[in-house]
Amino acid sequence: MKGVKKIEELIKKANVLIEALPYFKDFFGKTFVIKYGGSIMANAELKKKLIEDITLLKYVGINPVIVHGGGPAINQTLARLNIKANFIDGLRVTDQETMEIVEMVLSAKINKEIVASINQMEARAVGISGKDGNLIKARLKKYDDPAKDLGLVGEVKEINPELIKKLIADDYIPVIAPVGVNETGDSVNINADDVAGQIAAALAAEKLIYLTDVNGILADPADKSSRVSQLNFQEIKQLIENGKIVGGMLPKVEGCIRAVSNGVARTHILNGLISHPILLEIFTDQGIGTMIVQE
Amino acid sequence: MKGVKKIEELIKKANVLIEALPYFKDFFGKTFVIKYGGSIMANAELKKKLIEDITLLKYVGINPVIVHGGGPAINQTLARLNIKANFIDGLRVTDQETMEIVEMVLSAKINKEIVASINQMEARAVGISGKDGNLIKARLKKYDDPAKDLGLVGEVKEINPELIKKLIADDYIPVIAPVGVNETGDSVNINADDVAGQIAAALAAEKLIYLTDVNGILADPADKSSRVSQLNFQEIKQLIENGKIVGGMLPKVEGCIRAVSNGVARTHILNGLISHPILLEIFTDQGIGTMIVQE
Amino acid sequence: MKGVKKIEELIKKANVLIEALPYFKDFFGKTFVIKYGGSIMANAELKKKLIEDITLLKYVGINPVIVHGGGPAINQTLARLNIKANFIDGLRVTDQETMEIVEMVLSAKINKEIVASINQMEARAVGISGKDGNLIKARLKKYDDPAKDLGLVGEVKEINPELIKKLIADDYIPVIAPVGVNETGDSVNINADDVAGQIAAALAAEKLIYLTDVNGILADPADKSSRVSQLNFQEIKQLIENGKIVGGMLPKVEGCIRAVSNGVARTHILNGLISHPILLEIFTDQGIGTMIVQE
Amino acid sequence: MKGVKKIEELIKKANVLIEALPYFKDFFGKTFVIKYGGSIMANAELKKKLIEDITLLKYVGINPVIVHGGGPAINQTLARLNIKANFIDGLRVTDQETMEIVEMVLSAKINKEIVASINQMEARAVGISGKDGNLIKARLKKYDDPAKDLGLVGEVKEINPELIKKLIADDYIPVIAPVGVNETGDSVNINADDVAGQIAAALAAEKLIYLTDVNGILADPADKSSRVSQLNFQEIKQLIENGKIVGGMLPKVEGCIRAVSNGVARTHILNGLISHPILLEIFTDQGIGTMIVQE
Amino acid sequence: MKGVKKIEELIKKANVLIEALPYFKDFFGKTFVIKYGGSIMANAELKKKLIEDITLLKYVGINPVIVHGGGPAINQTLARLNIKANFIDGLRVTDQETMEIVEMVLSAKINKEIVASINQMEARAVGISGKDGNLIKARLKKYDDPAKDLGLVGEVKEINPELIKKLIADDYIPVIAPVGVNETGDSVNINADDVAGQIAAALAAEKLIYLTDVNGILADPADKSSRVSQLNFQEIKQLIENGKIVGGMLPKVEGCIRAVSNGVARTHILNGLISHPILLEIFTDQGIGTMIVQE
Amino acid sequence: MKGVKKIEELIKKANVLIEALPYFKDFFGKTFVIKYGGSIMANAELKKKLIEDITLLKYVGINPVIVHGGGPAINQTLARLNIKANFIDGLRVTDQETMEIVEMVLSAKINKEIVASINQMEARAVGISGKDGNLIKARLKKYDDPAKDLGLVGEVKEINPELIKKLIADDYIPVIAPVGVNETGDSVNINADDVAGQIAAALAAEKLIYLTDVNGILADPADKSSRVSQLNFQEIKQLIENGKIVGGMLPKVEGCIRAVSNGVARTHILNGLISHPILLEIFTDQGIGTMIVQE
Repeated sequence: MKGVKKIEELIKKANVLIEALPYFKDFFGKTFVIKYGGSIMANAELKKKLIEDITLLKYVGINPVIVHGGGPAINQTLARLNIKANFIDGLRVTDQETMEIVEMVLSAKINKEIVASINQMEARAVGISGKDGNLIKARLKKYDDPAKDLGLVGEVKEINPELIKKLIADDYIPVIAPVGVNETGDSVNINADDVAGQIAAALAAEKLIYLTDVNGILADPADKSSRVSQLNFQEIKQLIENGKIVGGMLPKVEGCIRAVSNGVARTHILNGLISHPILLEIFTDQGIGTMIVQE
Repeated sequence: MKGVKKIEELIKKANVLIEALPYFKDFFGKTFVIKYGGSIMANAELKKKLIEDITLLKYVGINPVIVHGGGPAINQTLARLNIKANFIDGLRVTDQETMEIVEMVLSAKINKEIVASINQMEARAVGISGKDGNLIKARLKKYDDPAKDLGLVGEVKEINPELIKKLIADDYIPVIAPVGVNETGDSVNINADDVAGQIAAALAAEKLIYLTDVNGILADPADKSSRVSQLNFQEIKQLIENGKIVGGMLPKVEGCIRAVSNGVARTHILNGLISHPILLEIFTDQGIGTMIVQE
Repeated sequence: MKGVKKIEELIKKANVLIEALPYFKDFFGKTFVIKYGGSIMANAELKKKLIEDITLLKYVGINPVIVHGGGPAINQTLARLNIKANFIDGLRVTDQETMEIVEMVLSAKINKEIVASINQMEARAVGISGKDGNLIKARLKKYDDPAKDLGLVGEVKEINPELIKKLIADDYIPVIAPVGVNETGDSVNINADDVAGQIAAALAAEKLIYLTDVNGILADPADKSSRVSQLNFQEIKQLIENGKIVGGMLPKVEGCIRAVSNGVARTHILNGLISHPILLEIFTDQGIGTMIVQE
Repeated sequence: MKGVKKIEELIKKANVLIEALPYFKDFFGKTFVIKYGGSIMANAELKKKLIEDITLLKYVGINPVIVHGGGPAINQTLARLNIKANFIDGLRVTDQETMEIVEMVLSAKINKEIVASINQMEARAVGISGKDGNLIKARLKKYDDPAKDLGLVGEVKEINPELIKKLIADDYIPVIAPVGVNETGDSVNINADDVAGQIAAALAAEKLIYLTDVNGILADPADKSSRVSQLNFQEIKQLIENGKIVGGMLPKVEGCIRAVSNGVARTHILNGLISHPILLEIFTDQGIGTMIVQE
Repeated sequence: MKGVKKIEELIKKANVLIEALPYFKDFFGKTFVIKYGGSIMANAELKKKLIEDITLLKYVGINPVIVHGGGPAINQTLARLNIKANFIDGLRVTDQETMEIVEMVLSAKINKEIVASINQMEARAVGISGKDGNLIKARLKKYDDPAKDLGLVGEVKEINPELIKKLIADDYIPVIAPVGVNETGDSVNINADDVAGQIAAALAAEKLIYLTDVNGILADPADKSSRVSQLNFQEIKQLIENGKIVGGMLPKVEGCIRAVSNGVARTHILNGLISHPILLEIFTDQGIGTMIVQE
Repeated sequence: MKGVKKIEELIKKANVLIEALPYFKDFFGKTFVIKYGGSIMANAELKKKLIEDITLLKYVGINPVIVHGGGPAINQTLARLNIKANFIDGLRVTDQETMEIVEMVLSAKINKEIVASINQMEARAVGISGKDGNLIKARLKKYDDPAKDLGLVGEVKEINPELIKKLIADDYIPVIAPVGVNETGDSVNINADDVAGQIAAALAAEKLIYLTDVNGILADPADKSSRVSQLNFQEIKQLIENGKIVGGMLPKVEGCIRAVSNGVARTHILNGLISHPILLEIFTDQGIGTMIVQE
């Protein structure tokens, strides 16, 4: 009797695999750019499940490209060194010493930890930053008012995706630290969400996925249950004007808009604090976050 | 509340995918030779699930190679034509007219139906017989006693796997009708189980799987619950001597022995009348049939 | 003296090879689609010579692609099974049972015999049908009048020539059974002449050759000596209107027109009942049948 | 008059290029592993000249692979954080926090600076650590005495050079941070000189070059002019026994011995504080440091 | 009536092509080294037919490699310049001026004429000498007696067949002038028959064919009808000892022996003064000259 | 002390290499067509230095293509044979015998000597003429006045650069004798400067360099110090009209104009009688001759 039950249990599992088959077919050989940040990294269990998702993508023929952030770890290290933060218009003024810390945390501490986690799963990851192969050329942000000096804060000038393409062709999973390099070869502090959007655009990726700590875009930020499952450019514009999309969500929707405008088929903003958020989004029809579309 | 429940349901499914990940890893890029016959074909629902299994293998990076039989359909067509069967030592005497029917049923009716079913699933199959590219060179079986003339009954002389390898390299799923060709270019009636074992050996496949209508090899053929999960060559020899392995099971165990002896990593005899038998066998540690090993 | 005579004999033969050299040059690396049917197959000697021609093409750097019919053998098998034929407007109504016979005769009996004959000549053939690799997608023919149900009679909807191209690239000679597949994966009875024309067009072949049982197109069908060596589209149109081109010749001239319109350089309708008809047509300036040109 | 003088000056320069031609020929397509550490990095002018040397190698068809150290920068950062050093038998005890600093300095600060410097020269570098692509698998060093716990200090267990080979094949200059990864995916502190020797061996490099702050191996460490231009294994053994080779020079000679024993053609220990040390060593017959040979 | 006769004539020609088919099969993709010299070149009609043979080989998938001599044209040019010949032991003493003439006649006059003739046939030839790509490294022949100075007469030291292989791979017909190059880069006068044998050996050619002005090796040189159709090494040794193989035939049999000993399948000595000698030899079973075999 | 001085000497040499690095970068993978003629060949020392330059180019990743002339050597050989020259409008009437000498000197004597010199430097050269691979198709020059018969004097009709491209791809240095071939396969006497310009255009080379015996184009031919370092098409036109560019300089400037008009980046006319003229021109900013630009 027990054997029979076990077989039935197995058949149920087989049925789940078969349910996923149409998605495997749709995404075979496609590239997904996945951005995630500090809130997920803080939870070992969630991190592990996310790495499992990424590894599974690779094994079913999808090419994941990871872009990571690192806010909390950077703040922690700066605090440990008693480096104080100055802000101009909400942007952290980044002097030479701060930039060094930012780069060390992003390009080494966080980047290599993700790489090692993926390699532990028997996939093969390579961690790079925007300096490697001149991947992310950046320029400094300048105010007209010379008193407002943001230091080494900058923005993406050009993505040079050749290295990513070669790593994908050689079956590695690229893991990208969002540090840019300017014309003099110096490091530039850039927004990781922007990097993800630009890289998805440069790769003409199939999907761009932002993992955040909310369930997607909320019609009313105060009401967690007000998630909107799909938004077009016009609707986003209104939500921004109405102050419903603010703060850290802004560069994400901008990244989605840039990506969609450059041929990325689908862009998603998801809650990364759920178990296996990528599988949930990809291998179900409903989706679990907000999808941005042109119209 | 309902949404939450739905998410939990989805997470359970994601967990099933993740459970399968270690098997995806182990079998990535490997070749599986799968033999199945008439009893499965008789059931449209089972056929469909089997084709799903085969398609899934392809999409998770495994190369399935299908060898099919066709006993019941052959018998039906022979009956329809009032062609009577003669047997010598249990082997059907195959005259020219019978051979023509055998070939038409195997190489067209059954073969192309499987091909079309796989193509319907958006994988890409190509059906071939042992004549194509001289895949299966055969010789006639001859008794010393000239009165015992089996006609066009023969056995595999040589497998020429180049065409299969090219089809796999071009991402097609080869579907093979077990019709041999002799030195004069004529069709030869050969045992499909033998063909499967020889092809697995010639390809140095990772797995050879026989789908039958029993749960594997039974220690006591009369007791369906007496399945043995693993047998080595020595144990098989004894079961044969003791008359526990007989009839249609004999060429299967011989195919397994040949395959294992030629470097095939694992050989299985399974019940194909269960839903998704291949997924059940492959993506679980326990397995559901009998595995043949050297020692 | 005798030796001298022998040498002179050999020199004459060498001169024949040298005469063929300009044609070898012209056709090197080109693709020829050759369609032939039942009347040639009925004659073992002619069949053998035709296979020799095809093999020779392959060895002098030309890529032959064979499309075969099978009318007489189909009729024979249907008769053997006492399946009666119904016709609507000259088209055989094809029910499920008839289609099964058609497919078995075309995709197995005839197809594999041609394959084996070529392989006997040490060239390497692979037999496929329109189901393999979804080569010939077909749709059913429908009359507005629901009483006129042709069953599984259809027409080519789309040729997917990738499998043929791969087989050619791998140095195989593709032998194609004209069985189409519809959207539900079922077999469809289609006209072999049409298939040949469509495949020649899809491959942008150098030549399309129809082997028939007459000397080409006759200005006066009653007068066998009235062969026209070349016809343009306009002239064909008139011959059809005047009832000079009728019956089985119609799909052949339509195939030629379609092929020429899609970039096939030369299309020929020849008498296949002559020894070595292909060599005669190809390796002489005069040609032996009718060539169809645009204008 | 002046023009003539200028031409003569130019001809002298052309002669220098021609003098280098035999070396270009000898080393065309070969791989050089170059290790350098903190003393060179401290001097901007020397760093620049070294990067020029590396870039020149690439442009004359040689494949440089860089392994760097980072002692002084690590010490500086640890001091900045008030992390105190404990030593056991001369090895720095590396706890979790220290390892984090070591990794951040090596894999980000130093590694990416070298990468950016090379890219500034219009060559294309990619910075990786031993974690990327599981390049450097390491194991912890353990004393029998449990009281002597070195923490995360380890040694190279296995070099997996595939990623380096792919980067070279794609025309990138690999820059390697000597951080190992153990079986649990954690970072391990390993000796950079050892890493360089092991990588040279794994790549079967043509040359392994250690850039130090002395003129090579000194027969008498107290006498800077006592450089020995060539030493064999036996002579090295004696110098070690006599206490003439000590401290940081020990892992370098061990690296050379390992490399030579594994097929590296030439190994050198040079003074990196001279201008263009690599060009001086490579493109002259005399060489400027100490070369280690088997016998 | 006439048309019928014409068809019969055409069918006879087709039969000749089909007769050649087994030879096409045997030699497909194989390399033939063909040496011919001055006696053929003197006859425009024979030259043309030979070039046709070579072109035909290329078009039926055989790779011809031509080595030519040039005795008569060299003598003519030397006479035109009043350069007198000195001989030591039957070898022409080759001073600097004579060598210049030899090289100019071989590497330009004769070589480029053959090249242009082949190109006129729409095949693609490239003429090279032993200097190109260091194809034929040679050393001078030296007598112990210093008075016997042969000047620039030498022998093959090493064949470097890479350039020939690349030209074949790029579908060119290599035409080789037998001028060697010594260690100082100077031209060396070498025997063309020897060059042909060595090149056949270095290429592991299928066939080596010497075209001469006799019908092969004669058992009795005085009796033109005494041709021997096959000889083994032992028989050749005896014919040499008995003075039956002498003069210019010696380096040819030595070339055959060297070629056979190094894996060349068949070597032939033929009369090149017959029409289409290569086709006659290759595409008939009997052959027309003498074949040299090991035993 | 001496050692120190030596090191300083070495560092100076290293600096020269580093000075050349920007040029290495600019020209990496580019093609240079270099034409030189008899005046350089007359001087063994200059020849050697030029070959060194060419070899160096190859080793620093530049693809040199050599076109040579041969005037003096041709004249010498014609004189040796007492063949008198006739001129019409300054063009040497080329009868059959003269053409044979021209071809022998160009395609053998000069061409193979250059080839051997390069091979002596361990680069790999292959010498070809316009006949090989139908590289230079030519047509005869015809005057309307039939009395003015130039014989085999012709001009370039078409360059077929495929053979050059294949030799470059296989890492050979092509050395080209300027002999054309007409439609009947006969040799045609063409201007070497014109050939060089046309080949540079057909290859879309980076540079075309004419090595002459003057310092470039002189504003006043009588004043050797009046070299103009750069001229545009308009200025050249005026200099021609003013009779300042005459004689052998004319086809060179025409070659430059043709090359520039067809996409060649830079064209130079240099004095080849200076040591290492190519290195001097390429690896300095000033240049040493005259550069022709569009405007």
